[in-house]
Amino acid sequence: MLRLYHVPLCPYSRKIRVALREKQLVFELVEVQPWAMEDWFLALNPAAEAPVLVDGERVVCDSRAIEEYLEEAYPQTTLFGRSIGERAETRRLVAWFDSKFAREVSDPLWREKIVKRWKRAGFPSSDAVRRGAEAIRLHLAYIDWLWQERKWLAGDAMTMADIAAAAHLSVLDYLGDVPWKEAPGAREWYAKMKSRPSFRPILMDRIVGLNPPEHYDDPDF
Amino acid sequence: MLRLYHVPLCPYSRKIRVALREKQLVFELVEVQPWAMEDWFLALNPAAEAPVLVDGERVVCDSRAIEEYLEEAYPQTTLFGRSIGERAETRRLVAWFDSKFAREVSDPLWREKIVKRWKRAGFPSSDAVRRGAEAIRLHLAYIDWLWQERKWLAGDAMTMADIAAAAHLSVLDYLGDVPWKEAPGAREWYAKMKSRPSFRPILMDRIVGLNPPEHYDDPDF
Repeated sequence: MLRLYHVPLCPYSRKIRVALREKQLVFELVEVQPWAMEDWFLALNPAAEAPVLVDGERVVCDSRAIEEYLEEAYPQTTLFGRSIGERAETRRLVAWFDSKFAREVSDPLWREKIVKRWKRAGFPSSDAVRRGAEAIRLHLAYIDWLWQERKWLAGDAMTMADIAAAAHLSVLDYLGDVPWKEAPGAREWYAKMKSRPSFRPILMDRIVGLNPPEHYDDPDF
Repeated sequence: MLRLYHVPLCPYSRKIRVALREKQLVFELVEVQPWAMEDWFLALNPAAEAPVLVDGERVVCDSRAIEEYLEEAYPQTTLFGRSIGERAETRRLVAWFDSKFAREVSDPLWREKIVKRWKRAGFPSSDAVRRGAEAIRLHLAYIDWLWQERKWLAGDAMTMADIAAAAHLSVLDYLGDVPWKEAPGAREWYAKMKSRPSFRPILMDRIVGLNPPEHYDDPDF
């Protein structure tokens, strides 16, 4: 039995939830609060981060390690592509979203507005929020461009690249921080992601005291 | 022919240089300055980051994507381990150093002291430097602990986990920022890494106007 320890409004946890469903794997979902630094969770992942995947006796930490693990352990459906070139392109774009987009957009918006709140670490820095709101435009334009050139972000098939991008954007969209009107191609691509059955459950999460904008879980937005 | 575009004092570039040598691959090395945002380099990697590997017609960006690519394209020598469990543990620790250690230690020390200098982006924040100098102690203690329990960081064999950790530490050691005396196990492990032929070339790099401490390239330090 697979079990995923996750944080509902966390891009990395969302990425793995969607990946598990795209691979048609059955899994239990356990919500955690890694910032509480509880002993049992630190024993699972000394880095004190979600997501953590437990597969029988095996514990797999770090979202990129988890997606590589799923690819090796459950190869029936690939989320990276079959050729070595497709796989390199998928991984480049996963890194784009999990590192570059994270540093320039998700960290200044999501970490400032949400993670700080979880950790009771004060208010968001308005300077960071301004930087994130500015930087997201360039990234939406990049998605727009990829979407014009290709069927999906990394090529002809939906891959981890789409899942990583959509996971980050879904969290920011919850906060009302995605200027979709400026990037019609990116919006079209995201509408396609939203309408996948794998994506529906993550759009159902709500956090107390913070409601998403009306369009948030509507595939036709 | 393989060609690696790299920055000499960059942990991610160093990681791939060592990995290429450990895999006994022959490659050309081209020094770049990604922060100059030159068109030819942005065409290779729109993320404007080193390292970039070019293998014939193929361009591979992002250090974690490159190491996975090398593992798939040149599987004769593995740097991840043969079993699925070893591979997951190796990737967990690569993520530990490339994400957690990077955020807590390399960013506040290397990015503040070196990357800012390259980008002419002002002086290091003394607050960040203080945070980094404090955080490195916990990470050295973790290496110490892994080294007591195992032959190498991820298990019985030298893997990408050791290479990632040593690449980050080598850059910080150049800056004189590693309190080796406090972590004799970590020092022993790093001495073993330093004495590998794959590691020698990176210890020969010097940057103008900044000399490393005397022990820097000495395997018996």
